[in-house]
Amino acid sequence: MKNTRPADFTDVRATNLSVVLHHLRAEGPSSRAAIAASTGLNKATVSSLTGTLIEQRLLRETGHTGNRIGRPGTALALDGSAYAAIGLQVAADRLTALAVDFAGDQMLLWHRAFSTGAFSSGRGVSAITALAQRAATRVRQQGRQVLGVTVAVPGLVEESGTVRLSPPLGWSDVDLRGQLSGSLRQPGLEVAVANHAGLAAVAELRHGGHPGADLTYVTGAAGIEAGIVVDGRLLHGSRGFTGQIGRFALGPAGSPTLADLAGIEPLVRRALPGYDPASLTDLAPAVEQVAILARAGDSGALDALRDTGTHLGQGLALVANLVNPSAIILGDHYAALAEWLIPAASAELSRHTLTSTHLAASALGLHAAALGGAVTHLDRIDTGTLP
Amino acid sequence: MKNTRPADFTDVRATNLSVVLHHLRAEGPSSRAAIAASTGLNKATVSSLTGTLIEQRLLRETGHTGNRIGRPGTALALDGSAYAAIGLQVAADRLTALAVDFAGDQMLLWHRAFSTGAFSSGRGVSAITALAQRAATRVRQQGRQVLGVTVAVPGLVEESGTVRLSPPLGWSDVDLRGQLSGSLRQPGLEVAVANHAGLAAVAELRHGGHPGADLTYVTGAAGIEAGIVVDGRLLHGSRGFTGQIGRFALGPAGSPTLADLAGIEPLVRRALPGYDPASLTDLAPAVEQVAILARAGDSGALDALRDTGTHLGQGLALVANLVNPSAIILGDHYAALAEWLIPAASAELSRHTLTSTHLAASALGLHAAALGGAVTHLDRIDTGTLP
Repeated sequence: MKNTRPADFTDVRATNLSVVLHHLRAEGPSSRAAIAASTGLNKATVSSLTGTLIEQRLLRETGHTGNRIGRPGTALALDGSAYAAIGLQVAADRLTALAVDFAGDQMLLWHRAFSTGAFSSGRGVSAITALAQRAATRVRQQGRQVLGVTVAVPGLVEESGTVRLSPPLGWSDVDLRGQLSGSLRQPGLEVAVANHAGLAAVAELRHGGHPGADLTYVTGAAGIEAGIVVDGRLLHGSRGFTGQIGRFALGPAGSPTLADLAGIEPLVRRALPGYDPASLTDLAPAVEQVAILARAGDSGALDALRDTGTHLGQGLALVANLVNPSAIILGDHYAALAEWLIPAASAELSRHTLTSTHLAASALGLHAAALGGAVTHLDRIDTGTLP
Repeated sequence: MKNTRPADFTDVRATNLSVVLHHLRAEGPSSRAAIAASTGLNKATVSSLTGTLIEQRLLRETGHTGNRIGRPGTALALDGSAYAAIGLQVAADRLTALAVDFAGDQMLLWHRAFSTGAFSSGRGVSAITALAQRAATRVRQQGRQVLGVTVAVPGLVEESGTVRLSPPLGWSDVDLRGQLSGSLRQPGLEVAVANHAGLAAVAELRHGGHPGADLTYVTGAAGIEAGIVVDGRLLHGSRGFTGQIGRFALGPAGSPTLADLAGIEPLVRRALPGYDPASLTDLAPAVEQVAILARAGDSGALDALRDTGTHLGQGLALVANLVNPSAIILGDHYAALAEWLIPAASAELSRHTLTSTHLAASALGLHAAALGGAVTHLDRIDTGTLP
């Protein structure tokens, strides 16, 4: 009932470009004849499609190769060297910039101290813009065309790129995309702003190595949010405000939320009673300290981790019962503590659901959302929308 | 990354058939020239597309009409009289069969007593098959081609049509689709089995009159389940086991679930303390009795409704926080009690979420899932897949 746009030859071509790129990504270098045989496209079409892709510097010829079908032919391989994209990730304590090229190679990974306590949103936006600008310049110096920049922000982000509300950053109604676009002033550079957890889920889908196209990524940073991928596509909801699982609560006013019960900050405060709360602007050292204590068998840390895992499992059971992912990926700081969280969380998840859900730690580290931000621009090529 | 099937002219044609049907559904009878002007398709293409649709008896010419663009032309209108589909709905207390034609006109609505307590799943399947068979025969007698039959079942239904687990029916691992297909033995008749709430959500999307393409339908029958439509498509999850919100619970083992706190059965037991529990196999008379008491100002009934609404709102807040629908539709027996449930539920929903969600009663009555079952077959025509 939704699609009211007529289709034409352009759509067919985009789909078929996508089919050729997908084949080469999955199978590695292949001759035109092998592509035709495997995809079902006829040889003339494959020649035309690969011609366009070579022109656009997305494929290159790799010399002659033995070919299982017919005469030996020239093999074609994906060429990742022409295009790259940038992801930025804004947390309460730091900025992260990351660039990857179309081949998936990471070109830069930068961290900058950031303090939303000390910064107004205006100064924050300036810092973000300056970092994006420097990253774009560096990538261009390495000979790549920068397709786009996406900034990952925790909280409610409108599709327009306005940050409606970000409790971890203390921001509301900040037109981050508008201000960034105005400052970057680069024709052809796409600028976007999106939710942290959603972008991290996109990164997991492409680089996480999980089977299946229905996965949920859970952030364990200053808040708890979920990025939900359904049938290979990120779930946006009516306004883009999905995955707000930290607000989960069942009970009368004042009942604790999932963020109160299973958040990283409450865990750290409990596991490290002597820890200076002021230092909690950067959670990473505190999380590392909790892991050290747990590894040493400290019962306070182990109890706190088990209780956190139990509550987290109860929250994730709600997610599993509602959207039925094949896997739930514990990200950010949860990943560093996964060996202690997962046993308790898995037990609760099984107890509250009728179907099995795989629970695993993310292997993408603390910058999965930045990676996802870059990946969104490169994914578009894979769907046949050429630069 | 997912689409690996090459596209061809057939896909373009399906999309454009869909565009023409969509135009006529939205705008009413139109000339070929008006269709071309409004859709952007060229006139030769429109002539060819409408020719096919007339041949397939999906359009008919309605005589000459004044035409805003160019010469007066023959108007074309949707013709719903050639095709129909059947939906069946299985509840613990009764079977419902419903048929609609492509124009959306209801051709039959039958109810049959059904008792999963007394019936083995084998006898249940026989009763379902017999009803489907009679409905198909009746529809054919009225001169329509029956495109398909879909059976709505509460609980976990695999995509294959096997009922994995239906607590309200007391069924597990029943290959309902296989048994039905074997018994109906009609070439060309599609047979499907799917979750009750999901099918009801599909019916709301097409016939409910709600704006937007992100809605969640909540069943208030023997269990509580949600059907979640995202961007116009039903959310299936990895195995089809979405929307199990009756199992929602946050707390240690034995904590009450949303079904315990906000279910129709607990509500009836509380609001009607003298009611014979054995009579609860059919909830409709009891629900009507609760409404009569509430309308008369009975404080016991009003208290029970308010508490149920409060718990329901807390559960729906979890749904809103996770999938961000624009509207949540209270269906089945909830709809009959909506005027008392919605105020308390809305207050909780607002209190627990950062975004606004419209909460409304379904106007589709107790057979929304059967309607949705029929609609799924007719929807396929609208996407350009002709019978």
